[in-house]
Amino acid sequence: MKEYNVAVVGATGVVGSEMLKILAERNFPINNLQVIASEKSAGKKILFNNNEYFVEPVKPGVFSEVDIALFSIGSLPSKKIVPQAVKEGAVVIDNSNAFRMDEGVPLVVPEINGDQLKNHQGIIANPNCSTIQLVLALKPIYDKFGIKRIVISTYQAVSGTGKAAINELEEQIKDFNEKKIIKSKVYPHQIAFNALPHIDVFAADGYTNEELKLIREPRKILNDDDLAITSTAVRIPVFYGHSESVNVETVKAFSVEELKEEINQMEGVKVIDKIVDNQYPLAIMAEELDEVMVGRIRRDNSQDNTFNMWIVANNLRKGAALNAIQIAEKLIYSI
Amino acid sequence: MKEYNVAVVGATGVVGSEMLKILAERNFPINNLQVIASEKSAGKKILFNNNEYFVEPVKPGVFSEVDIALFSIGSLPSKKIVPQAVKEGAVVIDNSNAFRMDEGVPLVVPEINGDQLKNHQGIIANPNCSTIQLVLALKPIYDKFGIKRIVISTYQAVSGTGKAAINELEEQIKDFNEKKIIKSKVYPHQIAFNALPHIDVFAADGYTNEELKLIREPRKILNDDDLAITSTAVRIPVFYGHSESVNVETVKAFSVEELKEEINQMEGVKVIDKIVDNQYPLAIMAEELDEVMVGRIRRDNSQDNTFNMWIVANNLRKGAALNAIQIAEKLIYSI
Repeated sequence: MKEYNVAVVGATGVVGSEMLKILAERNFPINNLQVIASEKSAGKKILFNNNEYFVEPVKPGVFSEVDIALFSIGSLPSKKIVPQAVKEGAVVIDNSNAFRMDEGVPLVVPEINGDQLKNHQGIIANPNCSTIQLVLALKPIYDKFGIKRIVISTYQAVSGTGKAAINELEEQIKDFNEKKIIKSKVYPHQIAFNALPHIDVFAADGYTNEELKLIREPRKILNDDDLAITSTAVRIPVFYGHSESVNVETVKAFSVEELKEEINQMEGVKVIDKIVDNQYPLAIMAEELDEVMVGRIRRDNSQDNTFNMWIVANNLRKGAALNAIQIAEKLIYSI
Repeated sequence: MKEYNVAVVGATGVVGSEMLKILAERNFPINNLQVIASEKSAGKKILFNNNEYFVEPVKPGVFSEVDIALFSIGSLPSKKIVPQAVKEGAVVIDNSNAFRMDEGVPLVVPEINGDQLKNHQGIIANPNCSTIQLVLALKPIYDKFGIKRIVISTYQAVSGTGKAAINELEEQIKDFNEKKIIKSKVYPHQIAFNALPHIDVFAADGYTNEELKLIREPRKILNDDDLAITSTAVRIPVFYGHSESVNVETVKAFSVEELKEEINQMEGVKVIDKIVDNQYPLAIMAEELDEVMVGRIRRDNSQDNTFNMWIVANNLRKGAALNAIQIAEKLIYSI
């Protein structure tokens, strides 16, 4: 079996660490591994498959031996460094928002549009965490019944922001326990015991970037520019696992049983919906599960052909690192 | 000025305590106060306006001198005890779900349908916490533009469940800090660092009672049986303050500026919507504010005449105790 030279860029971040974990778990065929991060992490040691790797900074030529570079360093740094990696010969799978909506950059959830990978020109974009779990639950419905309109409200974990945000929530609840004053640095307001209707920066028309990602990315992934979507993105004091309350209007009539069947047979998706036993998807369950969980599937009687559902997934794994590595796998096994 | 004999039933609970606080704050014209609770609290002392009151249990004749009885003891106990209080001559303002949808029982938010109070037959129902803040934000829109359909997702505080739930969240985060095993008794699953799509018991069609309240109560309060509403009710690890993500389709066209003006001029409602300064309603702000806060008001481009908003209020005050006492005030000052 062919082995590949792989670089993880942003290797010390929460998604980068998860990428390394998943590369090991899935026995990704690695010939040579490079762990790359910012100047201030350079020289640190990272353990991978019981071997130590030194963190390298970005410099000219660092990607010259790399076949596949997995990036998770945020939009601005990605805009600067991804083109260098492509120029030096790597195929980049980028987890940031930098290139997602660009023509010629496939935006891929392998279970849905893995076929788009063949069109890449050096960069493949990994969709936003909140998008990936949403489209995986929507895809079987889209195919079977058609979708007219989607209304989304999210309940997102702080790990989506990164390590500093995880620390901030930990410190705030520690300060709360010790009756100290709660300080906020990462978020504009206290996140402990609060709900912030504000993720990423504010953009056009009063929407946040996170909300716009939820509107634009599903259209590209499902290849339907007319899909009607609106969204409200909210950060809540949860460490891991994004939850989403989703209202869907379909084109064709359905039964709730059909919805459950269709969603459950979708690859990478699992229906958990036994309300008599209080079984429904929960953020704390996502910590140990790679599948997207869907539950609370019920008819919305406020209009025809409409239903509600509750979607939960691990935002660092299927929402980020796992999807990126599944893209890499699809790429190498279909070459 | 006439003074009234007032009883607070459930006086040791979170809403009952808040009722006593608000009666004092607002100088409610009290002649005699009785504080009533369950047998196990009987004999306890409660401080009100620097006087001590002994908690009385419910027994025959306990309401015989009472003009106004403010109940907050849950649906099952209310079903049993409220009829006794009415029989013994009290007018009951009941915070539970027991009588809300009954014919002949006004379901009142004073700023909206205070005129309904004249139709009471001894019982007036206080709407559910999540309903009150919703209808206050909807009312000016309903009057000016008409409403076709509403999609609601809630982010509700544990104080809505009561003292035991507040304690449970406190203990769970304490156990988390001390790296102990987290135990759940009040909720079927861990509430700390989680989002539970399950409030009150499951009822018809896969909806919870809390979700059905959000569908049925606004129809009664706005006097419109055809109002199309769907809802998802979610408990999150917040102590005080319910938040709601609400999508509204109107009958007539609007501008976003008009929406903000109409909502802001509504009595008891305040628009907080300066995104350039990161100003929007937050649960932690609700602790100190009686008004319902509305922000993130923005056009939903997924269909015509539709917008999103974010509504936050103090679930114990305007969502429960304050609204009940405003009902009592409206009742006595309009007699």
